[in-house]
Amino acid sequence: MATMREVAELAGVSTATVSHVINGSKKLSPETTERVLQAIAQVNYTPNTLAKSLRIGQTHTIGILVEDIRGLPVAGIVSGISETLARSGYKTIFHDLHLLEKLYNQYEQIGTYRERINAGVALLKSSNVDGIIYVAMHDRHLDYLLDPMDTPLVYAYSHGCDQDTCFTYSNRDSAADMTRYLIARGHTRIAVIAGHPHSYPTGQRLLGIQTAMQQAGLALPADYIRYGDWEYATGKTCTDALLSLAVTPTAIFAMNDLMAAGSLATLQARGIRIPEDMAVVGFDNREIASYLQPPLTTIALPTTEIGTQAALHLMERINNPDLPPKKEIIHCSIIERASV
Amino acid sequence: MATMREVAELAGVSTATVSHVINGSKKLSPETTERVLQAIAQVNYTPNTLAKSLRIGQTHTIGILVEDIRGLPVAGIVSGISETLARSGYKTIFHDLHLLEKLYNQYEQIGTYRERINAGVALLKSSNVDGIIYVAMHDRHLDYLLDPMDTPLVYAYSHGCDQDTCFTYSNRDSAADMTRYLIARGHTRIAVIAGHPHSYPTGQRLLGIQTAMQQAGLALPADYIRYGDWEYATGKTCTDALLSLAVTPTAIFAMNDLMAAGSLATLQARGIRIPEDMAVVGFDNREIASYLQPPLTTIALPTTEIGTQAALHLMERINNPDLPPKKEIIHCSIIERASV
Repeated sequence: MATMREVAELAGVSTATVSHVINGSKKLSPETTERVLQAIAQVNYTPNTLAKSLRIGQTHTIGILVEDIRGLPVAGIVSGISETLARSGYKTIFHDLHLLEKLYNQYEQIGTYRERINAGVALLKSSNVDGIIYVAMHDRHLDYLLDPMDTPLVYAYSHGCDQDTCFTYSNRDSAADMTRYLIARGHTRIAVIAGHPHSYPTGQRLLGIQTAMQQAGLALPADYIRYGDWEYATGKTCTDALLSLAVTPTAIFAMNDLMAAGSLATLQARGIRIPEDMAVVGFDNREIASYLQPPLTTIALPTTEIGTQAALHLMERINNPDLPPKKEIIHCSIIERASV
Repeated sequence: MATMREVAELAGVSTATVSHVINGSKKLSPETTERVLQAIAQVNYTPNTLAKSLRIGQTHTIGILVEDIRGLPVAGIVSGISETLARSGYKTIFHDLHLLEKLYNQYEQIGTYRERINAGVALLKSSNVDGIIYVAMHDRHLDYLLDPMDTPLVYAYSHGCDQDTCFTYSNRDSAADMTRYLIARGHTRIAVIAGHPHSYPTGQRLLGIQTAMQQAGLALPADYIRYGDWEYATGKTCTDALLSLAVTPTAIFAMNDLMAAGSLATLQARGIRIPEDMAVVGFDNREIASYLQPPLTTIALPTTEIGTQAALHLMERINNPDLPPKKEIIHCSIIERASV
């Protein structure tokens, strides 16, 4: 194959100028640019980077497709991904689907945006990425949302079909862990402020709580389960409802920190001491958890770890496309503060 | 120039296969790949995308260099940038410098990471980006931090030198606005819980507060200015110090929401009613501001708008490199809640 020097000689310019034309790294006159382009065509020169990329069929570029960078866990996951990829010399193409306001807290409505999502995938593929990581805002099943593709794909903070690879946390196990934590501290009457009744995390977390209660020989009466909408205000109304019961609970497990914050506000307004008269725990370890009065005991999501593991696995899969699908459940931790 | 069809005929494959080799969009046998590559070389074929990119000298790719995606304003800014770029058909290469833990709250120490930052720029340039947006975690001057470059560059949420283009907010004006807001509500004894004494935002915000006080003919006594370290705990200690003065203030302006939260906690522990006995305001409009008791009146940072404007301007600059440098100051808004 021809060399850059031959192109330079034919065009009557320096090799640096040829390089500038190829890399677009300097503004040159249209005449010079055209002369270099003609010389490139004439001597049949292929720039090294392209040649190399054609030969090994890899670009060392990974696409990150996020539902919305502003979503609670997304920045942490992207941080884990990008640090891991950069260490291995991979570049990152980033595409944001901007679904935060569109989905609001109706996370299951994602099917409505099927076209937008597949257009995002197509955009990343047009950059010849070696693989794609799909980063969700909320853990849920995304079966058959993405069109089938040859490019290796990993789901982060969500589930695909059986044949897909995903890295996420267990709603069920972490809710069971927190329930056992409350039981170990003497609580037997534990009430739940749940999320939307039909959401995947609500169902899974409830299963975890029920399992832990059963294993301890404890009952979870139906009127101890109140469904909110993941927002602060329903934390308050659900707490009012629980306090109106004949036998009140001694602990409230809210399925997110916002509803736990609402619960704390209602309890305090009624003069109920936390944790002496009532324990309250949340889920998510949002920033507010540290600043509530009292600071909230809650469950931390392993966001960075999910990103790191997803990136490590994707690089492995790119180099070994025959790897079987993998479902990795990364452990959540309980952050102990002062509300239990 | 040769066509893809000629390559396909020479290699004895379909044009789809040639396309797969060029785009890396399908795994092919090494033999097929090699045959196609040889045919490409033989007929002197240049793939259209590369040819087009060579001819106009643009890749329609923008590099986003973030100090850390987890930093308070960064996700909002990146959201504004990526939505704007995607609308105009630009792709985004993302590189994260991972400086959150390294800088912690000593934002001025960024000079220590000069090499890491310029390596990040070099990485983006090696992808032939048409331009770069530098997204800071904190607003401050970054003069001479980046090596000189030909690639168009825009600073978001920070300042470069005089000849650089930046999009950020005004620490000074927004602090003056908030001070006037307090004055308009009858406050004359306004105390300040400031950040680190030598930080740029601290100095600028203090200037804004002093200006507004002077314009209203009010005094800001030296013992009404207390320096914290941007963290919750110093919000508490500074409030204790202010309450021990012979003449106590009627309003406290904390330079961020975390110190305002500490201030609220101390005031409440001492039985001081907010806002009846003391008004408290913050800066940043972090998530916690909505959930404090009472909800905190504070200043919202125009993060999405900074990202949007920075992206729009960069695209303009790419197409017109002779644009003069621009410094755009985007207005912050006061979020009224219940603490005044």
